[in-house]
Amino acid sequence: MYKINKIDGGVCASDGFFADGVGIGLKPDGAKDMAFIYSDTECDIASVFTTNKMFAAPIRHFREKGDFKTNFVLINSKNANAMTGKAGVSDIDEILSNVPNMINPVMSSTGVIGVRIPKEKIIDGIKLFDFTKRDSSSASQAIMTTDTFAKEIAFNVELEDGSSFNIGAIAKGAGMINPAMATMLCFITTDAKISKDEIQQILDEVTVTTFNAASVDGDTSTNDTVMLLSNSKSGVVDKDAFKEALHKIMLFLAKEMVRDGEGATKLVTYNVTGAKDDKEAQKVAKALSDSLLVKTALFGEDPNWGRIASTVGASGVQADEESLTISFDELTVYKKGELFFDAEMESKASEVMKKDQFTISCDLGIADGKFTAYGCDLGYEYVKINADYRT
Amino acid sequence: MYKINKIDGGVCASDGFFADGVGIGLKPDGAKDMAFIYSDTECDIASVFTTNKMFAAPIRHFREKGDFKTNFVLINSKNANAMTGKAGVSDIDEILSNVPNMINPVMSSTGVIGVRIPKEKIIDGIKLFDFTKRDSSSASQAIMTTDTFAKEIAFNVELEDGSSFNIGAIAKGAGMINPAMATMLCFITTDAKISKDEIQQILDEVTVTTFNAASVDGDTSTNDTVMLLSNSKSGVVDKDAFKEALHKIMLFLAKEMVRDGEGATKLVTYNVTGAKDDKEAQKVAKALSDSLLVKTALFGEDPNWGRIASTVGASGVQADEESLTISFDELTVYKKGELFFDAEMESKASEVMKKDQFTISCDLGIADGKFTAYGCDLGYEYVKINADYRT
Repeated sequence: MYKINKIDGGVCASDGFFADGVGIGLKPDGAKDMAFIYSDTECDIASVFTTNKMFAAPIRHFREKGDFKTNFVLINSKNANAMTGKAGVSDIDEILSNVPNMINPVMSSTGVIGVRIPKEKIIDGIKLFDFTKRDSSSASQAIMTTDTFAKEIAFNVELEDGSSFNIGAIAKGAGMINPAMATMLCFITTDAKISKDEIQQILDEVTVTTFNAASVDGDTSTNDTVMLLSNSKSGVVDKDAFKEALHKIMLFLAKEMVRDGEGATKLVTYNVTGAKDDKEAQKVAKALSDSLLVKTALFGEDPNWGRIASTVGASGVQADEESLTISFDELTVYKKGELFFDAEMESKASEVMKKDQFTISCDLGIADGKFTAYGCDLGYEYVKINADYRT
Repeated sequence: MYKINKIDGGVCASDGFFADGVGIGLKPDGAKDMAFIYSDTECDIASVFTTNKMFAAPIRHFREKGDFKTNFVLINSKNANAMTGKAGVSDIDEILSNVPNMINPVMSSTGVIGVRIPKEKIIDGIKLFDFTKRDSSSASQAIMTTDTFAKEIAFNVELEDGSSFNIGAIAKGAGMINPAMATMLCFITTDAKISKDEIQQILDEVTVTTFNAASVDGDTSTNDTVMLLSNSKSGVVDKDAFKEALHKIMLFLAKEMVRDGEGATKLVTYNVTGAKDDKEAQKVAKALSDSLLVKTALFGEDPNWGRIASTVGASGVQADEESLTISFDELTVYKKGELFFDAEMESKASEVMKKDQFTISCDLGIADGKFTAYGCDLGYEYVKINADYRT
């Protein structure tokens, strides 16, 4: 048996890890816009990147390194270094050659696409770093773009014999969040003693039901990155406990990203059951969390179950109206062909819709396939943020 | 050779066809909300319906009739008769049994999902119809939901020997318009002498590059319907001319639907070329016309070509930044890895974005696949309309 306890410290909760954020003038008014994560011993690194074919220069740079260990990640906001071709990759080489005494440093970027990265500013900025700092909060602030709050979390995992290891993370959303990875960056550190192959396998597995189950707007960015750095310093691990703690971390951050989705006012859990198989359930859950008509109905707090039904039907999976059941939290609003949604039920359903967080359940009534996804509403603020993003 | 000339009359332009719209109290303030299309001789009927698995009762009713001829279509707005199960179908039987002296009458509905159709109102309303009326405009107004203008068009096709035939149509959009059919209704009449098999085949073919290439919000409704009624009264046809005229009609209406998309201020043509094949080009064009980030950038008149590139990359087709070229109308803003989008070009691109109609071209530079799709921007008005639709 083991115990998983929430602790402070974010990425610096893990033994031997340091981090900080500084302002180098990419954001206005001296706001923090560049961060580092550093381990005083070398780390195995597991990663999941965007599926976008126009993946950004930092991802190309990472991939071209092949198999490697590292102890340093440099992260900037405001410029994605995407669509910048080979020049974008050599910019990274030049930048990282200015990082003193690190093992295979890597870089990660988020921001506007199609503009060369301001190399000089970043190289000058590196001089501002204090590698003895353990300020995960500053790092999490520096990587924010349209996020309205910083995102970090950490857990201590206590094993039966009293030994323990830590896992911590920082992340940023907030738009372009989509079940197939999105403009999200997430950096996770651990001092658990676990092999590179194992952390990669567990990371891949946990991604499916966490970050890839979260949708803000159905777009998949050029820069999506999850990195898990592991320096083994604690000397111990329990793989089940590690996986459970990692799942807690990634699910928490995935939900935080959706809750902080651009202009979002609600976090909605889509619980799809009874599908032909899990794949079809996932398709339905994704269709629901991506549907503009559903998202705007959420924003209007309108218990329009017809749009839910229509979206299920349009998702391309096996489904029919005689088998479908739809509920808002515990309130069933449509059941297998029966229409009983009267004024009284509508007012009860409206109460559910007014909550900040609730669950929409769709039972397809066909077989045992199930999947849970997370989405938000879409309101005026999303339009405002995205119509004016560059200006 | 033949000549295709635009004429007045909509669905009544074809010989022997009658139509009208009346107000029966489904819409407030006596607005027209129910229409008929009637031919004084029986018609072959070709049709394309939604791919939504929750297809509405009128579609189920139509399909259950098997192979049939008809001379009468009854259409109502404000209630979709969808998710109403077998009761919804028997409601239609009861309604249509009150239509006097027609051959296999059929029905089509659009509006809110999940509410039984107000049978009595509709049956009473049928008594208001004057079957000698040829008022296509009234019919096109009666089928509107969130449309801001009525949509009708007709062509006369003059053959070399001086004989001619007509094709006319009415349609409604305006939300839930999607490349896989959408809450759109379109009724087309013709007096051309052409077989049922031929009109069905031509209708299927033309749908791909017209209605199925148009997207407002990526949702596919329960009620999408295109019906083509053909009474052969002219006694003549030229199949190429028929297909060309039908394409003109359906492309015009598809673009009108997008232009009148909920809250839309711009009609954008997405011209995708150089893809691995036409299917992949279609995938890219659909991804672009559906992308929230692209649509909000259009609304903000922001020439954010990075979002175009990112959306191409996220669409799942073969693509890379070294082969891609992006243009706004004639202005190339990105070409095969070259970054030359400076302030001067940005101001030129902004001028293009300010237009009501323009073209975004993406050449993937890989092979010869091509497809053209039509989309619109997404602004505050879309949110407003869809957050408050039922109230």
